[in-house]
Amino acid sequence: MRAVAVIGIGKTAFGAFPDRDLRSLAVEAGRNALQDAEVEPGRIEAFYLGNFAGPSFVGQNHLAPYVAGALGITGVPATRFEAACASSGSAFFHAVSAVGAGLYDIVMVGGVEKMTSQPTPKVAEILAGAGDTNGEGKAGATFPALFGMIARRHMYQYGTTREMMAAVAVKNHANGAKNPLAHMRKTITMEQALNGKPVADPLTVYDCSLVSDGAAAVIIAPLEFAKRAVRILGIAQTSDYLALDSKADITTFEAVRKAGEKAYKMAGLGAADIDLAELHDCFTIAEIIATEDLGFAKKGEGGPYVLSGATCLNGERPVNTSGGLKAKGHPVGATGVGQICDIVQQLRGDAGERQVRKNSIGLAQNLGGSGATAVVTILGEAR
Amino acid sequence: MRAVAVIGIGKTAFGAFPDRDLRSLAVEAGRNALQDAEVEPGRIEAFYLGNFAGPSFVGQNHLAPYVAGALGITGVPATRFEAACASSGSAFFHAVSAVGAGLYDIVMVGGVEKMTSQPTPKVAEILAGAGDTNGEGKAGATFPALFGMIARRHMYQYGTTREMMAAVAVKNHANGAKNPLAHMRKTITMEQALNGKPVADPLTVYDCSLVSDGAAAVIIAPLEFAKRAVRILGIAQTSDYLALDSKADITTFEAVRKAGEKAYKMAGLGAADIDLAELHDCFTIAEIIATEDLGFAKKGEGGPYVLSGATCLNGERPVNTSGGLKAKGHPVGATGVGQICDIVQQLRGDAGERQVRKNSIGLAQNLGGSGATAVVTILGEAR
Repeated sequence: MRAVAVIGIGKTAFGAFPDRDLRSLAVEAGRNALQDAEVEPGRIEAFYLGNFAGPSFVGQNHLAPYVAGALGITGVPATRFEAACASSGSAFFHAVSAVGAGLYDIVMVGGVEKMTSQPTPKVAEILAGAGDTNGEGKAGATFPALFGMIARRHMYQYGTTREMMAAVAVKNHANGAKNPLAHMRKTITMEQALNGKPVADPLTVYDCSLVSDGAAAVIIAPLEFAKRAVRILGIAQTSDYLALDSKADITTFEAVRKAGEKAYKMAGLGAADIDLAELHDCFTIAEIIATEDLGFAKKGEGGPYVLSGATCLNGERPVNTSGGLKAKGHPVGATGVGQICDIVQQLRGDAGERQVRKNSIGLAQNLGGSGATAVVTILGEAR
Repeated sequence: MRAVAVIGIGKTAFGAFPDRDLRSLAVEAGRNALQDAEVEPGRIEAFYLGNFAGPSFVGQNHLAPYVAGALGITGVPATRFEAACASSGSAFFHAVSAVGAGLYDIVMVGGVEKMTSQPTPKVAEILAGAGDTNGEGKAGATFPALFGMIARRHMYQYGTTREMMAAVAVKNHANGAKNPLAHMRKTITMEQALNGKPVADPLTVYDCSLVSDGAAAVIIAPLEFAKRAVRILGIAQTSDYLALDSKADITTFEAVRKAGEKAYKMAGLGAADIDLAELHDCFTIAEIIATEDLGFAKKGEGGPYVLSGATCLNGERPVNTSGGLKAKGHPVGATGVGQICDIVQQLRGDAGERQVRKNSIGLAQNLGGSGATAVVTILGEAR
């Protein structure tokens, strides 16, 4: 494997944009990434696009050449990757693997989702397609219900409290308020977070990530090609069963644990080396579990860990300095590449008001469904 | 690039199967491929699944780990590829590239679609998502309408006749009748083909491929690992604009031409070396154009070429000995890998009643939408 680097990033704001269509969002992010990398579209040798449910949300499929053509990229492989909420994480994994193996030199990875044109019950139904629709779906278990069960079990097994989950929301809203591209730029208090409108017991509206429109893109290339780059030190994608009832233990995501293990091994690093992370907080409990599965906290101690302030902007290991899925927003297919952009910004020292001081190694973790797909990326060596 | 081979194939019958769900079809094909390759599921290092519109047809997304888990494949990358009707061709391209580059040794590529549970108007709407829905879709142009325009232009520009298109249908039905796994196992006469029910002028029902359920899978590995294998000599995926009105000439598919050129170059071969081919006959005119774009006939002479009998089972270069999308059936996401299985069967000499004599080099061509994605694969050196 050659050393591979992110040489350009591009994002749109995340939010509800009734006047924007899916393609215009993806094209904006792609153009920003090309500009940032100082690369012409004609030099892109392959295009990887993560998108979860364009056909269901906006009726458009075959999205990779659809977006690539509008960016001026034709005549090369243009492929859509779907892995639920880890769609663009998966696209990124495949792109990095291909460049690392020498198949291409310069490629673009994009991620996009346009969700807010559908009414909420329809959004919930489309999202439920990321779980086992024959079992969980037929039982009426939408994703808040599934993560509600996960949260309840974590509380029972480890003594995790609603305060600990609320601490995730308070922290991520505080960070999102500092991110000009975040969907929800407002701080919330612990009091508010604890008294949110119930969604699926024990989760309230403050435990759930946002339904957003948005796109993100990166350009990757061999490290030696790059003037300004952040190196990919380790990366892995793994899979597990879709249905919660197929898993031995629902308080851990085996796919995340394994992807973390592989990515750490590839990087020659361990949890202690990670300075900051973007973790997949589709629900507050998911961030707590991710801190455990990736070794930042011991099993069962992810709750006390967030409550200690360790993952705050000025803590020992800031988590979701972007605001996370909770406050930055969660346009499903854009989330994985969006996380990479956010880590790259921090490692470059370009994160503005939310810049953290200790920032040489960052980790991004992207989760699909209730843990059937996981992608973990470790980035560092900015120059 | 290491030499890569197909070491196992598995197919389901293609047809309308009201009692089968998507996963059971994909699992049947996958198990058949594992058995054929004599490989245990635990040895599969990555799973690539082509599927066009599972979420729209059956409400299930996140399909790769969903199918992989049921096959006993977990803890490895499991990813869904979507590129319209070239979805599993694209999955196959990425898998071959990864194994060739040394990223994995043994991987599985599957393709699946379950279409017949939706009523015909809904199927047409879902399929229209592979074209430009903002332009073509809003104008009411479904795929038969788009290929009707392509056919009309080809007739105008080159003198192609309805008889020439009908000859494709008659040939492919004759082949399908010999294929025990084909959706439509009946021969048709030229008379019947010329008097079919109109669909989109000049195309009749006999010019259009079938709406089918079905799945296919292959196991690929480095050539040196294989006892019984068919080598992949050349492969390429390319892209073009979605909308017909973005193309300079709608009587040729630039993406197919380019993919063919790249695949020939990689194989060190030319059109004259190809003994037989599976071409993407979503409509009869598409097979005619493919014979031109791949150099079997000169531009504009694909019609006379099929009429000459050259592409019949006992012709100089048999095309769609499986029955093609026209008679074998077209479960969209399964088609690309299904074509690979069919070529491998011929090269192994296992094609039964439809076995062709001269069979050392075969080509498969998989088309997405009205030409925005193309994958061309050249296979040979069976042992």
